[in-house]
Amino acid sequence: MSADTPFPERIEACRRNMARADADLTVCFPGPNLTYCTGFDELPSERHLLLFVPQTGEPTIVAPRMYEDQLAAVPIDDLALECWDDGDDPAETIDHVLERAGVTGASATVLLDDRLWETFSQDLRGCLPDADFGLASTVLEPIRLRKDPVELEALRRAAGVADRVSQEIRSRGTDLVGWTEADLAREIERLLAAEGGDEPAFETIVASGPNGARPHHHSGDRVIEAGDPIVLDFGAFVEADLPAGTGRYPGDQTRTIVAGDPPSGYERVHEVVREAQAAAVDAVEPGVTAGSIDEAAREVIEAASYGDAFVHRTGHGVGLEVHEPPYIVAGNDRELEPGMVFSVEPGIYLEGEFGIRIEDLVVVTDDADGVERLNDSPHGWETGSE
Amino acid sequence: MSADTPFPERIEACRRNMARADADLTVCFPGPNLTYCTGFDELPSERHLLLFVPQTGEPTIVAPRMYEDQLAAVPIDDLALECWDDGDDPAETIDHVLERAGVTGASATVLLDDRLWETFSQDLRGCLPDADFGLASTVLEPIRLRKDPVELEALRRAAGVADRVSQEIRSRGTDLVGWTEADLAREIERLLAAEGGDEPAFETIVASGPNGARPHHHSGDRVIEAGDPIVLDFGAFVEADLPAGTGRYPGDQTRTIVAGDPPSGYERVHEVVREAQAAAVDAVEPGVTAGSIDEAAREVIEAASYGDAFVHRTGHGVGLEVHEPPYIVAGNDRELEPGMVFSVEPGIYLEGEFGIRIEDLVVVTDDADGVERLNDSPHGWETGSE
Repeated sequence: MSADTPFPERIEACRRNMARADADLTVCFPGPNLTYCTGFDELPSERHLLLFVPQTGEPTIVAPRMYEDQLAAVPIDDLALECWDDGDDPAETIDHVLERAGVTGASATVLLDDRLWETFSQDLRGCLPDADFGLASTVLEPIRLRKDPVELEALRRAAGVADRVSQEIRSRGTDLVGWTEADLAREIERLLAAEGGDEPAFETIVASGPNGARPHHHSGDRVIEAGDPIVLDFGAFVEADLPAGTGRYPGDQTRTIVAGDPPSGYERVHEVVREAQAAAVDAVEPGVTAGSIDEAAREVIEAASYGDAFVHRTGHGVGLEVHEPPYIVAGNDRELEPGMVFSVEPGIYLEGEFGIRIEDLVVVTDDADGVERLNDSPHGWETGSE
Repeated sequence: MSADTPFPERIEACRRNMARADADLTVCFPGPNLTYCTGFDELPSERHLLLFVPQTGEPTIVAPRMYEDQLAAVPIDDLALECWDDGDDPAETIDHVLERAGVTGASATVLLDDRLWETFSQDLRGCLPDADFGLASTVLEPIRLRKDPVELEALRRAAGVADRVSQEIRSRGTDLVGWTEADLAREIERLLAAEGGDEPAFETIVASGPNGARPHHHSGDRVIEAGDPIVLDFGAFVEADLPAGTGRYPGDQTRTIVAGDPPSGYERVHEVVREAQAAAVDAVEPGVTAGSIDEAAREVIEAASYGDAFVHRTGHGVGLEVHEPPYIVAGNDRELEPGMVFSVEPGIYLEGEFGIRIEDLVVVTDDADGVERLNDSPHGWETGSE
């Protein structure tokens, strides 16, 4: 199976970056870094489960005994597995692994998973009192930033699921009147599953009328009325074309629609957001900075005098995580590279009135356009089936 | 609202423990510690959101601007809120908060949330290069361990939801034959919601036949056959009787049932697990150690010569987290105190044959029994409605 999966090469790429960064050891924790390196996708828990990748020598997973079978199936040759039992002291297993890897303290540079829990961090710092500590993202982020073809295919498929659900909801027109936000959110999640999505990638946002002015509104009991602008922000995970359970990728799309006639002034604001979103997408190409994409959206919104109402960054990277680098935010000097995937989602939020946000995922390409939109459903506010 | 919620007193109890531990500052991160102290229940994200509790001086939340409204509603007097905007450097806000709290480095003792992400830990260590770091659990765990009446009421209610679903599934008898594990898991989750549960507290386990021999089996496509032992391990969260969204508590119950006639030898093994579970529950009272409860279960199973087949600890604490202290594990010298809630769930796992686990939640009491079972559904393997 080894030859068919990207995991061994990802570990090797990590080690090449470790050599460049002069790092002796990288430690991954359950979460996106561990899934990316091994395909082992598990929630963090109070039990020590850590992947140790030394710059040289065999990578080793330290895990509770109950995961032994699952971890034995990880498709990486020369991956050692050290299981501990409930009642053992996992620190002893860790000491043993560190010793075998030749990482024993003085002047060692150790890169810890960005999401490692503090309790495990302090254990490791106790085992290595003289080491220098950095972040695993130093060596893993440059690899994870550029999506490979398997990842891109999954992200395209996830975007398609969201697009189809978006179109289905839009087609219902005035039938949306009378639904509560929470019920419509559940209906969207039902449709995401029916269209081939796995579970929702984040809490589905249905924010109607004045609730739309809160970017992270929790869908609630408010009943949708005719003429309400409705912010719909949702997506589902899909499994990548890899061994089952070893990698899933999310959709993340926002449309703002109106069932009926929009309130006075709404159409102009919607047009501003639409132009800002298009300007930002147009600005995407290899070599420009992430910050410049934020600027492109912000310029349009500021020119229309709504600058203060655009209260968040323009976007975030998307991959194994729904929010990951690159962040499309003012001042981010990171240069875009082919294969980076992120959201472009400017918004205008008018307290007490409504909010409007339009979001697509895009991938940076090395062709003439420099960018490909992963979403292709319409951006307009109009609803109904004709 | 302040007077009606437990949050101000929880912060004060934290500060009293900080004074005893000579700690200058406790830092909480989104997750159970933050929810416990403030009622603010949010998932961790890449944006800095931290509660700073100095031993003296006002507690302060540093948060992204988008949470300003939600955080302004936290019912704690004198809680300061410092919001930062996308594009700002949150480290500057943190420096300012640390300075106002008089925690500026040399010889400061800072307790970090046990689940704080490493990326934020390294930021804080950068702001306080000369501080000593410990874990927030040093001061919060002693408070969280002893559940208050509001928490106990919620845990009892969550146990009742699981009990009723357990009885409903058991009553179906041979109608369970022909279901896939995954479909039965979904049916259980539907019933949990119908009985008043919020979302499932963890991945519902339906492990049939030989799959039962894996304690953390993921329910799959296997079709349940007549005579299969079926391990059913599930529970749902319920909201505590507090302001909406400020605290939810899980159920966690396991029964192992058989639809039809059990395989040869099964009944004896089921009886051993049942006796082990009862012996462990009987052993619970204030003043005994957590390890002694594990020992009580293990003795029964070892006496029946199945010691090697009991591959995990006997239980875990349950509260805002499904797994939290006290851990009922060999060697744990922690003494039980009234108000502690944990699972008692011994099991026997026979590779290739079946597994059996029986689990209840219990609370340590100061009455004559020393213990109250929160679950009251039967422990037997028999199914059917009469």
